[in-house]
Amino acid sequence: MDFAIDTAGPRFAPVILAGGSGTRFWPRSRRAHAKQVLALDGDKSMIQQTLERLLPIASANDVWIVTNQLLAEVIAEQLPQVGRKNILAEPVARNTAPACALAAFMLEHEAPETVIGVFPSDHVVGNRERFVEVIRAGIKLAASGERIVVLGVPPTRAETGYGYIELGGEMDAAALPCGDVPVRRVKRFTEKPDLARAEQFVAEGNYAWNSGIFLWSARTLANAVREHCPAMVPLLQQIAASHASSHAGFSGVFAELYPLCQNISIDYAVLEPRSARGETVSEIYCLPADFAWSDLGSWTALYEHRISCAPQLADSGNVCDGTSTHSVIIDAAGNYVYALGKAVALVGVSNLVVVETADALLITTRERSQDVGKVVAQLKSRGRYDLI
Amino acid sequence: MDFAIDTAGPRFAPVILAGGSGTRFWPRSRRAHAKQVLALDGDKSMIQQTLERLLPIASANDVWIVTNQLLAEVIAEQLPQVGRKNILAEPVARNTAPACALAAFMLEHEAPETVIGVFPSDHVVGNRERFVEVIRAGIKLAASGERIVVLGVPPTRAETGYGYIELGGEMDAAALPCGDVPVRRVKRFTEKPDLARAEQFVAEGNYAWNSGIFLWSARTLANAVREHCPAMVPLLQQIAASHASSHAGFSGVFAELYPLCQNISIDYAVLEPRSARGETVSEIYCLPADFAWSDLGSWTALYEHRISCAPQLADSGNVCDGTSTHSVIIDAAGNYVYALGKAVALVGVSNLVVVETADALLITTRERSQDVGKVVAQLKSRGRYDLI
Repeated sequence: MDFAIDTAGPRFAPVILAGGSGTRFWPRSRRAHAKQVLALDGDKSMIQQTLERLLPIASANDVWIVTNQLLAEVIAEQLPQVGRKNILAEPVARNTAPACALAAFMLEHEAPETVIGVFPSDHVVGNRERFVEVIRAGIKLAASGERIVVLGVPPTRAETGYGYIELGGEMDAAALPCGDVPVRRVKRFTEKPDLARAEQFVAEGNYAWNSGIFLWSARTLANAVREHCPAMVPLLQQIAASHASSHAGFSGVFAELYPLCQNISIDYAVLEPRSARGETVSEIYCLPADFAWSDLGSWTALYEHRISCAPQLADSGNVCDGTSTHSVIIDAAGNYVYALGKAVALVGVSNLVVVETADALLITTRERSQDVGKVVAQLKSRGRYDLI
Repeated sequence: MDFAIDTAGPRFAPVILAGGSGTRFWPRSRRAHAKQVLALDGDKSMIQQTLERLLPIASANDVWIVTNQLLAEVIAEQLPQVGRKNILAEPVARNTAPACALAAFMLEHEAPETVIGVFPSDHVVGNRERFVEVIRAGIKLAASGERIVVLGVPPTRAETGYGYIELGGEMDAAALPCGDVPVRRVKRFTEKPDLARAEQFVAEGNYAWNSGIFLWSARTLANAVREHCPAMVPLLQQIAASHASSHAGFSGVFAELYPLCQNISIDYAVLEPRSARGETVSEIYCLPADFAWSDLGSWTALYEHRISCAPQLADSGNVCDGTSTHSVIIDAAGNYVYALGKAVALVGVSNLVVVETADALLITTRERSQDVGKVVAQLKSRGRYDLI
């Protein structure tokens, strides 16, 4: 495998979306220390791992980070390779469409053929080699014409929290620059279906989860925004011009104009209306995100990811993180524990999630760990902003 | 109720036995910080509460503490009312008979009519008023003749970890100085029966648990030791004489002679042979320890004690100790949590025991909490003396 930057290919500008303020990893995740800057899996944070995965195919100079003002500083510290000018702190959250579109307008004048890749900053990838292979294929595909490339995850369960992509037939590999990576047309996007539909999608076999990873040239994306979201175009163009000319004046312009943009996801704004044109004319293609992807949506998902990456754990099935000393396990299985550098003893317990921080202790089960959002909501309603 | 010291009655010298090195409250209990010096129930330690219960009926000058060398300093700090000379640190553990006998020989010359009360240092008493009433009655009974008084706990379950006292008929109250406190003869002692016998004892109704609280005059106890344990008499008399004459030389004599005493409990050494004489001649009497007694033998016992003392907790049934901030409880019941001054969130869990210290985190269930001894044993076998 070749981990050198592919200088022969099109210029590639990853845009890492890091504005989320999830509560799912409470008590470790907080407003000012969200999931993407936590080291949930290994020593590096999610966003550090996101960048690390991309550096074999992108120059750090071409990487953009879009985040919020609470997280910008810690991200700048965690990613010293990325220039401070390339870290954009949104004055208010406006979902993903304005963030992606801003990147397109920034690059369109200078280098419209540049392929923009949109990457969530809080997902894990088990197989980085395959990740590079698929992204390289996607870059080539996106660079050849007005194509939009989405990465779809082979679904493993009837998850109702994801978007689903309905896939058309497989394309002729010889006609496309994607090597061995299979390419399929996209027929339709469906956001968060109910359980019955999700089960039907998984059973039918021609659906993929929307990974949130998209590839398209700056020109393609800018044109799509001009077509589908014309109101935000002058705003974003003015912000882009300000950024290009003077970083000092930029934050004022950004703060003034960005909040006026429509608060909408790139899926709803561009991908859904495009796919509604019908399979043969929409020019949206799907590559498989078959690189052991997980969005780590809960402590339980983290537990499952850790077990899948370390089959030797599967015997006892206990994951003890954060602890620097021995654990004592007696008749215990299936537990996830994060404790601050202390010995952990598990006796006769199973399928628990226990997470300790300096100011909080969460005790729940793998089955209920998605409900930590309710804890955060209660703390918020009690005014305990110190804890959220 | 009269909480003043009863100066009209016989002199009363409580001997608090505090040598235990239990592992049942790991990770809070350690070798150098055993259960008796922990504040498991409220702000005061078990031994502080033990002393506090006795001070309405005893002068602090007359209180003796027998402990081990690891705990003597922390006990002296916790009990400033008790003179340092009255805190005896055993050079080696020799069970309860030598400790009780030593107190008897120390007091026999000076004031042989003094009633010695033997009290474990790690039990809880819910009803202190009744405790004082029963002990006062016991002191009067023990002072009138060569009587041995034991306190028996009305059994509530077929516990196999306790000693059982078989009771004879109730005595004529008018003939005894015990006021309203009922007195029964003791027929027999049975240490830790198997489950079938324990169930039979509880069903028969004429059995009590041995509380480990005994009352007898110094002379009665010294005579009993002379009769049943003659080998330790010269050793203990020499230690007692050394203590009376010079505290400086005392520790050398104590260290030399005490280890030569027989390692035996006062129950086996004196009470069982005495009771074997038959009910009518043994002169052993039982008063009811009917003052909401618990020996707090496990985290589960502590949980049950706390719930019984705070019926308002019984609804949610969660006890959160040690924490200074709010707790968030969502669909959780029956849990005991001790956390170090942090918010605790319980989501969808029941009947757990979770205990955090600076260097350890225990996660178990109420059903399995008695198995923390196994954790300590594993840590010991791995040489982790820092954690035990």
